[in-house]
Amino acid sequence: MTIKLIGYPISTPTLRVVICLKELGIPYEFEPPASFQALKDKDYIANKHAFGKIPVLLDGDYVINESRAICRYLVSKYQGKYNDTILIPSDVHKAGLVEQFISYESCYYDSPVSKIIGQEVFAKKFRGKDPDPEIIKQGREDLSKVLDVYEKLLEGKEYLIGEFSLADIFHCPCTNLAYGIAAHSDLWDNRPNVKNWWNNLRNRDCIKKSFEEVKN
Amino acid sequence: MTIKLIGYPISTPTLRVVICLKELGIPYEFEPPASFQALKDKDYIANKHAFGKIPVLLDGDYVINESRAICRYLVSKYQGKYNDTILIPSDVHKAGLVEQFISYESCYYDSPVSKIIGQEVFAKKFRGKDPDPEIIKQGREDLSKVLDVYEKLLEGKEYLIGEFSLADIFHCPCTNLAYGIAAHSDLWDNRPNVKNWWNNLRNRDCIKKSFEEVKN
Ligand SMILES: N[C@@H](CCC(=O)N[C@@H](CS)C(=O)NCC(=O)O)C(=O)O
Ligand SMILES: N[C@@H](CCC(=O)N[C@@H](CS)C(=O)NCC(=O)O)C(=O)O
Repeated sequence: MTIKLIGYPISTPTLRVVICLKELGIPYEFEPPASFQALKDKDYIANKHAFGKIPVLLDGDYVINESRAICRYLVSKYQGKYNDTILIPSDVHKAGLVEQFISYESCYYDSPVSKIIGQEVFAKKFRGKDPDPEIIKQGREDLSKVLDVYEKLLEGKEYLIGEFSLADIFHCPCTNLAYGIAAHSDLWDNRPNVKNWWNNLRNRDCIKKSFEEVKN
Repeated sequence: MTIKLIGYPISTPTLRVVICLKELGIPYEFEPPASFQALKDKDYIANKHAFGKIPVLLDGDYVINESRAICRYLVSKYQGKYNDTILIPSDVHKAGLVEQFISYESCYYDSPVSKIIGQEVFAKKFRGKDPDPEIIKQGREDLSKVLDVYEKLLEGKEYLIGEFSLADIFHCPCTNLAYGIAAHSDLWDNRPNVKNWWNNLRNRDCIKKSFEEVKN
């Protein structure tokens, strides 16, 4: 039975899952929700996502939600089945470092990037509201400090733990949106190791294809 | 070589690791940092935690930081070695649900609870500042909505996925602090399934012992 993904590729958590599916070579179909309002329907809340959100993955009768949980599930069940891409290594010490960088993404990186894209993309492009320059400034300042740390951590490395992993994927959706705004790409480009890392990621075949889906 | 944990039990992320160590029966020693300022020392940043934080776990020569990453590492490496407590089941479908609840904790539960304890515990008790009633009110309102969802999800269950898991542990440190404030325990106690769940957790031997360490 083909895996179904309920979501829209423009949603950053949905895109996280899309990249993971493509990297692992898992066949899947998109199933856009009936509408954004439909996420709050009784049936959707009871059977798809208790908090009324996307993405949700349907694997036969099995239902799982929350992007990071879905990705981990896909790795546990399908890594090595369709291709030989490894997103979480079997070596416990390497896997621990993947987890460490996953935590850096959700605890330090995501919040300032989200400040920038919340204003520049979601407020401006989608809701036609003026972006708040103070929030953007704060986001840039906080992100600069985080990227200074990444610059050191990425010294001599092509990816966060050296080899490509799930930790890199988790950084992609938000970075893609923020980097796509000309006024903010300097944050990545001004730091040679960070720039090299981000170029490695956005030029990977599966990631490039995933980003192209968002453009449509 | 005995595992060393750099941190203070009063820190909620450190307590998360303490509970995990005790539940898995892993022998460990506490190593409090020289001082809170010492977390920003060059050597600490370079060798212990790039963002200058606690907790950090030392397992022989292996260094890992970030509470949730440390717990996952401990499960991967030591689950089943010292006792038969299972925190992440080997069944991929069950493990997926553990991940889903771990994501609920970090995406929906943590933020409102942290608002409450940020004001009532960290501002008031530790910094002698007046708590901001507006922030507390907002925290209570947001948390009420989240706990209404938990109340449904916990119907007929003793723990989040039915059996005890890492997802339950991740909820404990912040809940312990917020529930300890008489004015807020109603949030849990007014919802029968949530109340039962929290009683199951705080009365578990290892969790009770961990909470006692914080009191000292
Ligand atoms: N923690 C969730 C976040 C999911 C999320 O916030 N999805 C948004 C779309 S990007 C949504 O469904 N919003 C609808 C709503 O909150 O009503 C995940 O990682 O999957
Ligand atoms: N995401 C981290 C959070 C760690 C954290 O914030 N620790 C605090 C103590 S509770 C800390 O080290 N603060 C020192 C600082 O930020 O300077 C984790 O889960 O381990």
